[in-house]
Amino acid sequence: METLSENRCFGGVQGVYRHASAATDCDMTFGLFLPQEAQDGPVPVLWYLSGLTCTHENAMVKAGAQQWAAEQGIALVFPDTSPRGEGVADDDAYDLGQGAGFYVNATQDPWAPHFRMWDYVAEDLPALVAREFPIDADRQSISGHSMGGHGALTLAMGLPGRFRSVSAFSPICNPSAAAWGRKQLSAYLGEDEGAWSPHDASLMMRAKGLAIPLLTDTGTADQFIDMLRPEALAEAAMARRANATLRLQPGYDHSYFFVSTFMEDHVAFHAEALYA
Amino acid sequence: METLSENRCFGGVQGVYRHASAATDCDMTFGLFLPQEAQDGPVPVLWYLSGLTCTHENAMVKAGAQQWAAEQGIALVFPDTSPRGEGVADDDAYDLGQGAGFYVNATQDPWAPHFRMWDYVAEDLPALVAREFPIDADRQSISGHSMGGHGALTLAMGLPGRFRSVSAFSPICNPSAAAWGRKQLSAYLGEDEGAWSPHDASLMMRAKGLAIPLLTDTGTADQFIDMLRPEALAEAAMARRANATLRLQPGYDHSYFFVSTFMEDHVAFHAEALYA
Repeated sequence: METLSENRCFGGVQGVYRHASAATDCDMTFGLFLPQEAQDGPVPVLWYLSGLTCTHENAMVKAGAQQWAAEQGIALVFPDTSPRGEGVADDDAYDLGQGAGFYVNATQDPWAPHFRMWDYVAEDLPALVAREFPIDADRQSISGHSMGGHGALTLAMGLPGRFRSVSAFSPICNPSAAAWGRKQLSAYLGEDEGAWSPHDASLMMRAKGLAIPLLTDTGTADQFIDMLRPEALAEAAMARRANATLRLQPGYDHSYFFVSTFMEDHVAFHAEALYA
Repeated sequence: METLSENRCFGGVQGVYRHASAATDCDMTFGLFLPQEAQDGPVPVLWYLSGLTCTHENAMVKAGAQQWAAEQGIALVFPDTSPRGEGVADDDAYDLGQGAGFYVNATQDPWAPHFRMWDYVAEDLPALVAREFPIDADRQSISGHSMGGHGALTLAMGLPGRFRSVSAFSPICNPSAAAWGRKQLSAYLGEDEGAWSPHDASLMMRAKGLAIPLLTDTGTADQFIDMLRPEALAEAAMARRANATLRLQPGYDHSYFFVSTFMEDHVAFHAEALYA
């Protein structure tokens, strides 16, 4: 693992690191914020998965999460959204290929060899982070934005017992039924929609429910709201009697101006679960 | 004036606007945050001047200022750092020409026709903002980062009565005596150093003092601290018995990770003056 940068921030350190990932078979870059408390021993951790076109950097510089994580003594991990590099397949569209990994393990060419973002975020990066940093692996929560909200929700439901709480900002809630989803799931996983259901939060919620607290925020002026389908997740969560708080925020859109506005609430929500 | 974007943010609106500037004789873009209170009437305003290489956008997305401005009911203006465009002179170096206006009115070729950032920030943009938005021109304060900290300090001292308070993050304090300063002042204003002194905060402080409250923060791990010369401003401010709080922050560097860490303090400092 190589340190690309470390900056003092809200009493802690915002680092950026690069490592060779076995899951994606390429170098991966991630951001990690450690609060001051990490100097004295392991701290709980909140994973933050980003959306289409993002790298590890967007949320790290625009979401304003560090201040609340510092206040709560929580680490933050900001993974990249896909494998990258010259030997990695790509597509001209912004919503497929590099920057658009969709948090699945691709089974289809040309994506299969590197696009294994589920394994990267579920196994590879957690093992590295637990080995290299003072992180308490028994106290993990997860959040994300848009495609990353989809990732947070599906990882939380697909890895029961791993996380203590899950939240999402404007998540893609029902990708099997929307343009943001059908395109990527068919490209990465093939046309058999049976393979898609472990990557559709609304279908997963409907099938199995969710045992940990859930918080989502979506702006009513979100320009992509028709592709997010918050109504599908809301219907499933209510039907399953999940411990869910699903909020619509009047006038807000899909941007980080929205995400940063509600970040304090999300970090406080996770802190409650992480320190319970 | 043309609206480029408006995003709901912390209950208010973060807008980006473009207008033809008479001062710089080209189109200029700026960011403006209006808190919710602006719906009910004019609100006080905090100007934020950015540093080398920045546009109107950097602080707008990375400084986390809107949340504190929203809490205090204060508007924020984020001007660009120079004239821009095809007809505007430039230099290959990052610290001269476009992105490096230094908040002066250039008198030397090829800069003179467009590089009039003092007039832009002192006259042109304030007039536009007061005309187009619910801003209370009697309650203005100013801040900035690095070159923008230099701008904030020199404008506050050069326009007595205009601002109620001034602050700066890692400001260039003594440009007549440092590489960040001598290069730009000689290019824009010529080799006669007599013309530089109204653009050197330490010299201005020493000559006239400052009648309004001043707050500065500089990181001890700032990679550019030798060019910032906080010691020169500190010596002058103390000698003039200015109402100054000059802080060094252990371990912090020159980045927005530093700026965002102390933004709450700065906005609260200005709010105290703006609501006095």
